[in-house]
Amino acid sequence: MILHIATFRWKDGVTEADVTELTESLMRMAAGIPELRSYAAGPNLHLRPAGADYGVAAIVDDAAGLDAYLDHPAHQAVYEQSLGRMIAERAAVQLPISQGSFE
Amino acid sequence: MILHIATFRWKDGVTEADVTELTESLMRMAAGIPELRSYAAGPNLHLRPAGADYGVAAIVDDAAGLDAYLDHPAHQAVYEQSLGRMIAERAAVQLPISQGSFE
Repeated sequence: MILHIATFRWKDGVTEADVTELTESLMRMAAGIPELRSYAAGPNLHLRPAGADYGVAAIVDDAAGLDAYLDHPAHQAVYEQSLGRMIAERAAVQLPISQGSFE
Repeated sequence: MILHIATFRWKDGVTEADVTELTESLMRMAAGIPELRSYAAGPNLHLRPAGADYGVAAIVDDAAGLDAYLDHPAHQAVYEQSLGRMIAERAAVQLPISQGSFE
């Protein structure tokens, strides 16, 4: 399985309402993509200093599952409707895991 | 529970051997920190374009568990011996999860 993680820093002017709407959109999107075995998305809890603004973590079975998620029309719609114009910086990584889940 | 994710971009000159040694050090470290309920660390599989170089994901029970991990002498030792001099950019986020594990 693959754990995909992404961290985001927002542009100036992104509001709390933008972020709340984004999270709702992403969670709705995730519920409709069966390749997503687990999905978490939200603003950084900021439990430590100097963190980024937002994070996403997803578990998929394999590379095909990752493509199915990231290239899904519902994911692209969220990107076009809100996420794309919010991002100043994005950093993503895929790690191999033998098994896993979260919710 | 809390899912802590971190993405890293390396400085020029960081070698594959540096990264392999780092991953081994981090996995040894994680085995000795009981607050880490799950831990994954490694170079980006680069299944998609434009990713970062390296990622870490950790599950802890709460903010105290996160501090116990990140402030642990074994974590600080890895930072001082290798990680600290490798980092060009780091972005970290904590997300709330109701439950989760991976290995």
